[in-house]
Amino acid sequence: MSELDLLRSTIADELARAMRLFDGELDSRFPFVRELCARVSQFRGKMLRPTLLLLSGKACGQISHDHLLLAAVIEMAHVATLVHDDVLDESEIRRAAPTIHRMTHNEAAVLLGDYLISHAYHLCSSLSTTRASRRIAAATNRVCEGELLQVHHRGDWSLSEELYLEIIRAKTAELTRAACELGAAYAGADESTTAHLAAFGEHVGMAFQIIDDLIDLTADAKVAGKSVGRDAGLGKPTLPVIHALARANPEARSELLELVSAVASGDTTATPRLRERLVESGGIEYARRVARTNVEAALSRIAGLPDSGARQALKLAAEFTLARRA
Amino acid sequence: MSELDLLRSTIADELARAMRLFDGELDSRFPFVRELCARVSQFRGKMLRPTLLLLSGKACGQISHDHLLLAAVIEMAHVATLVHDDVLDESEIRRAAPTIHRMTHNEAAVLLGDYLISHAYHLCSSLSTTRASRRIAAATNRVCEGELLQVHHRGDWSLSEELYLEIIRAKTAELTRAACELGAAYAGADESTTAHLAAFGEHVGMAFQIIDDLIDLTADAKVAGKSVGRDAGLGKPTLPVIHALARANPEARSELLELVSAVASGDTTATPRLRERLVESGGIEYARRVARTNVEAALSRIAGLPDSGARQALKLAAEFTLARRA
Repeated sequence: MSELDLLRSTIADELARAMRLFDGELDSRFPFVRELCARVSQFRGKMLRPTLLLLSGKACGQISHDHLLLAAVIEMAHVATLVHDDVLDESEIRRAAPTIHRMTHNEAAVLLGDYLISHAYHLCSSLSTTRASRRIAAATNRVCEGELLQVHHRGDWSLSEELYLEIIRAKTAELTRAACELGAAYAGADESTTAHLAAFGEHVGMAFQIIDDLIDLTADAKVAGKSVGRDAGLGKPTLPVIHALARANPEARSELLELVSAVASGDTTATPRLRERLVESGGIEYARRVARTNVEAALSRIAGLPDSGARQALKLAAEFTLARRA
Repeated sequence: MSELDLLRSTIADELARAMRLFDGELDSRFPFVRELCARVSQFRGKMLRPTLLLLSGKACGQISHDHLLLAAVIEMAHVATLVHDDVLDESEIRRAAPTIHRMTHNEAAVLLGDYLISHAYHLCSSLSTTRASRRIAAATNRVCEGELLQVHHRGDWSLSEELYLEIIRAKTAELTRAACELGAAYAGADESTTAHLAAFGEHVGMAFQIIDDLIDLTADAKVAGKSVGRDAGLGKPTLPVIHALARANPEARSELLELVSAVASGDTTATPRLRERLVESGGIEYARRVARTNVEAALSRIAGLPDSGARQALKLAAEFTLARRA
């Protein structure tokens, strides 16, 4: 059993029920829409956000039907962003999956993403109050702003560490924050506990994204199951590169930028050389340290919760972000 | 004063206040996001949906702040679909507007559309109940399904009239239906009146789209302000073509399909010839008749409302769909 399965065992039944709500909401009377939605299962990998939402609920009280529904909603909103990212990144899915019928890849991705986000809000507004809809829409507002910021700064190798952190806080950590916050709030947690869980979710999201960016640079392509060095290739400055560039003398800086360009132009020998340079400069170690600091901050936020299997699983979830290699 | 201005004069102040809510909701602390949103004004043309919503409210009772907010929401949801359509159609905007900063056209369109739809739901969920959120999300679910259906049937020249009508009912008439329904409901109209207004909105939407498709075939490119014959060029069967094909003998059918192919391949002489053929075959007249039948059905739905400037303006709005030439 993987670490992820282990930490999910305490909410395995609830997660399965949430995913049935997910599938039920997306059902369509048109076979080709159903077929298109089946693609979505490709993207439903770790289910980090619904897992965090359900564990936060259980750690603070009891899981209700509202929690299951919100777990489905938050995964749907997340998957919608993944599907649209695919248009932005022109990622390998374009090549791996055949185009469906007469649709081009981009068309299918745009419309499927829209279908998902519309259904996410539709499902969310079946709750008795607007509270969760308002919170989730506020989160997706920020996710969009984060994505816009990221694309706006593509190829901007002078991006500051501060702005990089702001981007990933918006595009990634805001949704994990909302997941934990809603999980706690819907279990009847008081304001202070809810705020702690929200901060926990944000720190976990930050660590998750920093490590995700790191894996793109350091992973074995076979283990990661995807091409390596894509972020640099797409002009996305990530923490190790930002750190290394900020500390490099002009000569070392040009060399680094040349390596990044070589990666971008598809030179496969450049990626290991870039990685080596980032190890030497301490950029890799620095990024790992920032991720670790976030995990520690996350753990401090749940230290005061009553001991339970769910709290233990939240701890494992936070630590898992550092342990994963792909 | 144009006909549109005339019919809007009864709600001009409310419409202006709704559009201030629209602009306020989209405001961002990032200048480049604000700049991107300014593009949106390009798309805010006729404001048909907020106009219908406000007029429906006024025709059934009093306009409240909720109406203004919903008018902003429904326009935002509509503009989001226009922005994403732009990715699907690769329309001339791609050429007319310079790409913004480092973003490609598709990226900006995907992210801006997502930003708009997220903010639409965010604004909508600031109301005191989930009623409108649920209704609007149900509408956008159907809009997405209609768009998916349309793309799925692209190049399908055997598309039935029935399925064509189903597509435009979903992609266009569902949102005008929701606009009028919400306008009435939020003015405290009873169930039967609300249902009449909903049906009014649907018929207006149907007529609007049929005429929109017709303009694409028949307009003078200079008057329409856009290229003509684009639907055929993009493989979208519209009513005149569907009608003509269904009634053609095999020989006439191949000739028509050849003309459509010629339009699609950019042969500028083919569009007038296609148009001529569709006039001869009665396809153009038939489409106009179906639109007129929808307008008559719409008018019958508001005949029982107390006489008022707003009711008169709704009547003008329905008739306007037939009169417009661009």
